[in-house]
Amino acid sequence: MSLIVRQLTVVGVGLIGGSFALALRAAGVVERIVGLDSDRSNCELALSLGIVDEICDDPRSAVAGADVVFISVPVCSIASVLRSIAADLPPGCIVTDGGSVKAAIVSECDALIPPGCSFVGGHPIAGTEKSGAAAAFSGLFRAKRSVLTPGATSSDRALDTVTRLWTAAGAEVCRMEAQHHDRIFAEISHLPHAIAYTLVHAVGTADVEGENVLSYTAGGFRDFTRIASSDPAMWRDISLMNKQALLASIDGFSASLAELRRRIAGDDRDGLTEFFTTAKKFRDGIV
Amino acid sequence: MSLIVRQLTVVGVGLIGGSFALALRAAGVVERIVGLDSDRSNCELALSLGIVDEICDDPRSAVAGADVVFISVPVCSIASVLRSIAADLPPGCIVTDGGSVKAAIVSECDALIPPGCSFVGGHPIAGTEKSGAAAAFSGLFRAKRSVLTPGATSSDRALDTVTRLWTAAGAEVCRMEAQHHDRIFAEISHLPHAIAYTLVHAVGTADVEGENVLSYTAGGFRDFTRIASSDPAMWRDISLMNKQALLASIDGFSASLAELRRRIAGDDRDGLTEFFTTAKKFRDGIV
Repeated sequence: MSLIVRQLTVVGVGLIGGSFALALRAAGVVERIVGLDSDRSNCELALSLGIVDEICDDPRSAVAGADVVFISVPVCSIASVLRSIAADLPPGCIVTDGGSVKAAIVSECDALIPPGCSFVGGHPIAGTEKSGAAAAFSGLFRAKRSVLTPGATSSDRALDTVTRLWTAAGAEVCRMEAQHHDRIFAEISHLPHAIAYTLVHAVGTADVEGENVLSYTAGGFRDFTRIASSDPAMWRDISLMNKQALLASIDGFSASLAELRRRIAGDDRDGLTEFFTTAKKFRDGIV
Repeated sequence: MSLIVRQLTVVGVGLIGGSFALALRAAGVVERIVGLDSDRSNCELALSLGIVDEICDDPRSAVAGADVVFISVPVCSIASVLRSIAADLPPGCIVTDGGSVKAAIVSECDALIPPGCSFVGGHPIAGTEKSGAAAAFSGLFRAKRSVLTPGATSSDRALDTVTRLWTAAGAEVCRMEAQHHDRIFAEISHLPHAIAYTLVHAVGTADVEGENVLSYTAGGFRDFTRIASSDPAMWRDISLMNKQALLASIDGFSASLAELRRRIAGDDRDGLTEFFTTAKKFRDGIV
């Protein structure tokens, strides 16, 4: 492929940021990649692994000469990263991110981005349980979706450039409103995590005559609750940054659970068959 | 190992019943195994696979000469199987089962078992996604727990024999009250299934501006909801047969979810960190 941009600066060279850099390098669409990471040893690892060409300690010098800056840090830090680099962004620079919450981030970043620069919200739907530069690999985004949520400062040129970068990284790009994104991911990602944490919390604190009921769990429970092993701080931040949509999803779930409870309590055999069969059809439909 | 019983009759030669037969045969503790199954072709398959020595169409002749009868059919059919064979059980015959609900079954079966015979409730904590004789294998119960829930008709001899059989099959046997069993498994098995079905139901019926949100799900959602692909009729029956304990577990879960919702709505950062961290500790403790 031919060059899309000369310099990419990646802030947060972890699984996502590092894999983005590796994928773009493999595709030959970026000339030079600069890395910046609050974790010095992770940043040095990224350099030694050839993920980036150069590393910087200072946010301002890291963005000097950048055509595109990819911010791949925890959701609650994305706006503050932009705040720390905004004054030093080169004219025409495009800033994009990889956060899994979009409306709050797009709104904050649109307010911070200087005139002449563009912010394009992004969310690649990919990941593994691992983290850090050591976990990065160029194929992470292949055949995965990457959602872009253009805002007030997303110029056509910026949107086109970010789209071409994700496409070069192997992803299928789709665009939607940030709030629409947040409602969808509240349902399919944030709600399931909230439910998994709640289930383990409820079962772990259940008092069945003083017995540790978790000692009876087998593989099924372990698989079902795997996502409750995720980073608590990350899910605290996602929950708060997507509060309204997540609360609506929790309320929808609670209404469904109340309906199931009513059918069990009322010995409603047909109603239970219908409930479980409908759910199974939805589940089997996504495999 | 030396012989524990001469004849075992297995009613329902599927994954559990077939694996029990194979494990006992491999251990050399049973002389002859007779199989009975409402699915004729599954029964013939069990015979051709060497899982059983002989098959019968007729429940009454299947139990002739049986020292132990293992009933491994759906939970709502266990008592009716016993009803169909009760009059023909040889004197001293021991009947046991593999149902995942115990109090209702033990109570019904204790009322049906003839004088001089014994019923011992059982629940091996093992399984795979597969079913039928073709899925059976002798190692299914190795290092797994098998719970026995003695009732009014469980003689010491019967309890000892069933314990030795499960031990010979590779399982670690533990004994508890049937109601205690049902409360534990409501928490760690029946509740998670109810929650998985409810989650898929809620997400599948969520209306996010007419979009099919399930089309955005990735591997995490698929793994998390795998158990919602289980047989709806089976979970309808388990839900109804363990109604009181399951309703209590659902109420405990709902209280935890309401607490999480309160902390999200109130921007309670410390409270959310504490909630997710506690859950993660429970989860990591069972790995």
